[in-house]
Amino acid sequence: MAPGRLETATGCCPPGVAAELSTRKSKAKAEGKPSPHHDIVLRTIRLLVADLCQQFGGGHPGGPIGMAAIGVALWKYAMRYAPHTPGYFNRDRFVLSNGHACLLQYIFLHLTGYRSMTLDQLKSYHSERPDGICPGHPEIEHEGIEVTTGPLGQGVANAVGLAMATKNLAATYNRPGFDVVSNHTWCMIGDACLQEGVALEAISLAGHLRLNNLTIVYDNNQITCDGSVDLTNTEDVNAKMRACGWHVIDVEDGCYDVEGIVAALEESRSSRSKPTFINVRTVIGLGSALSGRAEAHGAAFGKDDVAKMKRENGFNPDEHFVVGDEVREFFGDLPMRGEELVAEWEVLVERFSRKFADLGQEFRDRVRGEIRSSWKELIPTNFSNQPTASRASSGLVFNPLAKEIKSFMVGTADLSPSVNMAWPGKEDFQHPDLRTTCGIDGRYSGRYIHYGVREHAMCAISNGIAAFSPGTFVPVTSSFFMFYLYAAPAVRMGALQRLQVIHAATHDSIGMGEDGPTHQPIELACLFRAMPNLLYIRPGDSEETAGAWEVAIEAKGTPSIISTSRHKIPQLKETQREGVARGAYVLLEDDQAEITLIGVGAELSMALDVAKALKEENSIRARVVSFPCWRLFEKQPVEYKRGILRRQRGIAAIVIEPYVPNGWERYADAGICLRRFGYSLPEKAVYKFFGFETRSLASKVVEYLDGLNKGVYIRGEFVDL
Amino acid sequence: MAPGRLETATGCCPPGVAAELSTRKSKAKAEGKPSPHHDIVLRTIRLLVADLCQQFGGGHPGGPIGMAAIGVALWKYAMRYAPHTPGYFNRDRFVLSNGHACLLQYIFLHLTGYRSMTLDQLKSYHSERPDGICPGHPEIEHEGIEVTTGPLGQGVANAVGLAMATKNLAATYNRPGFDVVSNHTWCMIGDACLQEGVALEAISLAGHLRLNNLTIVYDNNQITCDGSVDLTNTEDVNAKMRACGWHVIDVEDGCYDVEGIVAALEESRSSRSKPTFINVRTVIGLGSALSGRAEAHGAAFGKDDVAKMKRENGFNPDEHFVVGDEVREFFGDLPMRGEELVAEWEVLVERFSRKFADLGQEFRDRVRGEIRSSWKELIPTNFSNQPTASRASSGLVFNPLAKEIKSFMVGTADLSPSVNMAWPGKEDFQHPDLRTTCGIDGRYSGRYIHYGVREHAMCAISNGIAAFSPGTFVPVTSSFFMFYLYAAPAVRMGALQRLQVIHAATHDSIGMGEDGPTHQPIELACLFRAMPNLLYIRPGDSEETAGAWEVAIEAKGTPSIISTSRHKIPQLKETQREGVARGAYVLLEDDQAEITLIGVGAELSMALDVAKALKEENSIRARVVSFPCWRLFEKQPVEYKRGILRRQRGIAAIVIEPYVPNGWERYADAGICLRRFGYSLPEKAVYKFFGFETRSLASKVVEYLDGLNKGVYIRGEFVDL
Repeated sequence: MAPGRLETATGCCPPGVAAELSTRKSKAKAEGKPSPHHDIVLRTIRLLVADLCQQFGGGHPGGPIGMAAIGVALWKYAMRYAPHTPGYFNRDRFVLSNGHACLLQYIFLHLTGYRSMTLDQLKSYHSERPDGICPGHPEIEHEGIEVTTGPLGQGVANAVGLAMATKNLAATYNRPGFDVVSNHTWCMIGDACLQEGVALEAISLAGHLRLNNLTIVYDNNQITCDGSVDLTNTEDVNAKMRACGWHVIDVEDGCYDVEGIVAALEESRSSRSKPTFINVRTVIGLGSALSGRAEAHGAAFGKDDVAKMKRENGFNPDEHFVVGDEVREFFGDLPMRGEELVAEWEVLVERFSRKFADLGQEFRDRVRGEIRSSWKELIPTNFSNQPTASRASSGLVFNPLAKEIKSFMVGTADLSPSVNMAWPGKEDFQHPDLRTTCGIDGRYSGRYIHYGVREHAMCAISNGIAAFSPGTFVPVTSSFFMFYLYAAPAVRMGALQRLQVIHAATHDSIGMGEDGPTHQPIELACLFRAMPNLLYIRPGDSEETAGAWEVAIEAKGTPSIISTSRHKIPQLKETQREGVARGAYVLLEDDQAEITLIGVGAELSMALDVAKALKEENSIRARVVSFPCWRLFEKQPVEYKRGILRRQRGIAAIVIEPYVPNGWERYADAGICLRRFGYSLPEKAVYKFFGFETRSLASKVVEYLDGLNKGVYIRGEFVDL
Repeated sequence: MAPGRLETATGCCPPGVAAELSTRKSKAKAEGKPSPHHDIVLRTIRLLVADLCQQFGGGHPGGPIGMAAIGVALWKYAMRYAPHTPGYFNRDRFVLSNGHACLLQYIFLHLTGYRSMTLDQLKSYHSERPDGICPGHPEIEHEGIEVTTGPLGQGVANAVGLAMATKNLAATYNRPGFDVVSNHTWCMIGDACLQEGVALEAISLAGHLRLNNLTIVYDNNQITCDGSVDLTNTEDVNAKMRACGWHVIDVEDGCYDVEGIVAALEESRSSRSKPTFINVRTVIGLGSALSGRAEAHGAAFGKDDVAKMKRENGFNPDEHFVVGDEVREFFGDLPMRGEELVAEWEVLVERFSRKFADLGQEFRDRVRGEIRSSWKELIPTNFSNQPTASRASSGLVFNPLAKEIKSFMVGTADLSPSVNMAWPGKEDFQHPDLRTTCGIDGRYSGRYIHYGVREHAMCAISNGIAAFSPGTFVPVTSSFFMFYLYAAPAVRMGALQRLQVIHAATHDSIGMGEDGPTHQPIELACLFRAMPNLLYIRPGDSEETAGAWEVAIEAKGTPSIISTSRHKIPQLKETQREGVARGAYVLLEDDQAEITLIGVGAELSMALDVAKALKEENSIRARVVSFPCWRLFEKQPVEYKRGILRRQRGIAAIVIEPYVPNGWERYADAGICLRRFGYSLPEKAVYKFFGFETRSLASKVVEYLDGLNKGVYIRGEFVDL
């Protein structure tokens, strides 16, 4: 096998298991019985779901009950993983995109032997226990959970990212006889995920990339909250998936036909050049009084119905959370089988490292999530003093890093010519057989990703790449800042999951000009400055852009947005890259200053220009503070913060930023900001239109100081100038 | 024809024009010539695009040049509209979803005789003129523009909304022989729109709804910014559209074959039960040196290339913006034809109103955009004093209005059981032939829309419905508040376009409980409170919820989000619906108060409870302010604002809201807020977990007042308690 091509791996179950299961099933069928082998397992799981929801009268029972047979097929037969070594690097990844069905996953984590998922923990589902590990949607912090899901559709894109991560690692490190990375990604979805745009974007891209190591298992119960799916969706989903380049397999009886599901899963694992979509017909809330109805989705069934279900299944209605010995035995071999996989892989990596010393060392570093300690040396120490767009600065700073360090997977939502994230000699991440009309040859070892005009999927896929294993990848996305509003749900999920993804957002100011108000961000920074565990950084020139990238790369466990200008901005001799890490720092000090001017990002130089004009034309002395990042500033000691702002010494501060000022009130007494949408005019004209010119800005500062003296303005009341 | 079914209307061009054009074309082809009829028109338009971009060295020439023949087919032959009466109610709607190609639309508005679009105005494209009507993307404020576009994919969803508006009006008002509403919606898209999730959601829904009055014309040039489309998309787009329930027509030569395009457009207008997708092969930047290349997309061609293009097309390279007489004549009949359409329609409506007096009156009110003046009387004046979830209050307030007033089109993204927006007896908006599995019969006159799990499309479609004609519809959307982050780009576009859409957002607090941090909004209000021209309102009980809906319905030209709780909240005797309109008002006054407590929405009652506890247990007197809406408060006179907050009298204010506090610094000195993501626990437990209980809150207030006295805290420095 040629390097760079991922050989299809065999399943966790011994070869031929699907055939054996099939024979057993045919025999039972001939005798007119259900397949006895799985019967008690399915009953147990379904009743466990009913009990877990019933105990506190809440939760989502319908989905997990319908998916029980799919769960058995996946966890017992198809997936390769190690319950006692949850972090096993080459494990199959499982994503529950319909995260509200989390009980399915929790129950299988319990049954297959994940140590933290005790029966006691299972019972914490929807309880008031703050130490529970069974939240209402799966959370990445807990053993056996690959990504946090809940907002629908995200998981599909995450799964695409996980599969891309595998492809890239396999193409980079596998050598004939040494498939050190060969895992498969499995993604469960419900009817809703297929309606969400982010999933549709990711599905289209996955088909294009021919990710044959990805399987979507569609829990097709034709029910959503509002009723039957045909209220809102009557498309031919299989035909749609085929049109998107997917291999499609139907399973008619997804409630009981474990054997049929296993056969489909095995077939998908051996798909040669397409991702697989397995359309499994199930019944929501099977066996309950609400079977097949929307009402089974999001509420406990009630005591009587659960008791009735138990009686009908031969269980004692007065006993709860019953898992019999034969069920325990059924799953009992999985931890050991998992440990065997881990041991085999470790031997393989050992042999690989001996045979390919440098590559082996590099691979081990990737597994440990380490990048070379000298990475900062790749960043330029000096920049031209000519005006430079900070999007260009971003390229100057980051391109050398992207070129040298394989952890960086860099993509763009169709804005390569604008965002400057493509380094000289970059290779595209594409299926090896691809030859594009515009002359690009594909290879999975490429690390530059053309996401297409799919901002939301780009960021959600990047979360998936980052989630592959801590630090193995640092994905970078790029687009216009305004379009990160399309991607904001994924940016949020990254912040929530502590996934380090760096978003290179350009055109972040009205100065981007003539594309007009739809493209000019005015209020968007308010979202990202508020979002927990996200660094939103607006550097003011190349030097600060270097600082922004340094901060973002060092911020393990935290995503960043580096927000840069389309237009050329002056290079300032006063800026310091180290200042960025503290969030704000003094650019121009003056102990006799009457006013502090706060400048930011693309408009930072304006603050310096205004200070100069005030001194020369109005004899007013001003200090200037550069303030690229609120969150980093908030982390500083109070003495540092007061030293920067000096408001407690009675010096008022005015922020200059053509964004909505909400939140600046914490740091400033007045703002020359914008509280309306932008306007379509070229750069200089639009700044003029909104009064962002030195003379106009200076006169507003004078007006403010006058108003303060005359009592028109009161300290403590923020003034919009 | 049965009422409620829209008969397919004939085109603007006389019957048989497609056949005649076809004959003419065949003759030219037999003689080995291009169709002479359109030759000079296409040359003129293409050179005009090149000139308009070249004059200031910017813009997007490639797309409009490629689409010139499509433009001729649409504006000359297919579309029914009235250049001299741009607001003609029954006009065809045209949406340019690939809005960067706006020059196409501007040029056709000019050539077809829209009075405001003079040649002088055309030349303002990318100029520094602030009075220009040719912004970088089409803007709804200007004559002949139906919706503002730019962020890709939005226009597709807008067009779906426009087509739905037609279907609903036609089904409601048309009677045999009286098709008072019969217009068609045309939507141009590029390769990128087909990649955006919001478009894919809307396409799926449009197919389900069988909107045969909708045509998407796909400018298929296989080029996006990064290069050829096959870098990112190799799906079978026609098969995908067919799977989504669309009729598909191919046009091979979209650069010159006006006749073929007209035939396809006519065929689409007569589609019986499906929306139509016309896949037109074009060449970006045709005839320029960059023809067929990504570089033709977003930059002027350069002086030499434009000159060369002119020479090759028989134009004088030294003359610019040339529109010859024969081209003027070619389009010269359109204003008169338009006025004839207007006159015919007015006669029809006149006859209709005589024959169906009440219906006619109602229809005229809808055309004028008026709802009955007594609408407020439909809102309950009293509510139960039992604890009520404010999402339930929302239903109590709005359901009677939705039932009675046909202007309201109310939809949900698959959360009917949760959002309480379905009124008793509501009828679903569905294709009349639909019978769903769960027993729903469809009719286009229905006004309850099941959008499916497509939040983004829901809001973008609602913008389209609202844009049909001012005030004719007031669309209402509903979902969990957190999922409005998926829809935020569309909410923004509504605010930018001054479209009145009301978003009923529930589960707006950590109190929504066990669904956990993915569903608990913490920072989202920061976005919507900052978004210009949007009212974000958090009412604190049923009475305030009544006030919120009153404000939202009165806010013509402004969208609103009414943000309500999942869980039951106390009903307060102090609240006043009129108070909501002022943004904030005093709930509990005390002239000797030491502190002002600001309460909001689902947690409003906590502020009152804390005030009571402080008085009883700490002898601290507190005032309480209810603060449901920042933007409404900002509109009040300064005296009112100071009277509410009293901070200038030295009384500090503390806000209690489990959201990120950014922006509250304008109104408060300290906040008991959240600066981290939420947590999966049931309602009471999650409030306890984060300290939102009376005793804990009160002790923080005491701590703050102590800290203030001791100088630990300094007034003017916002404190996170």
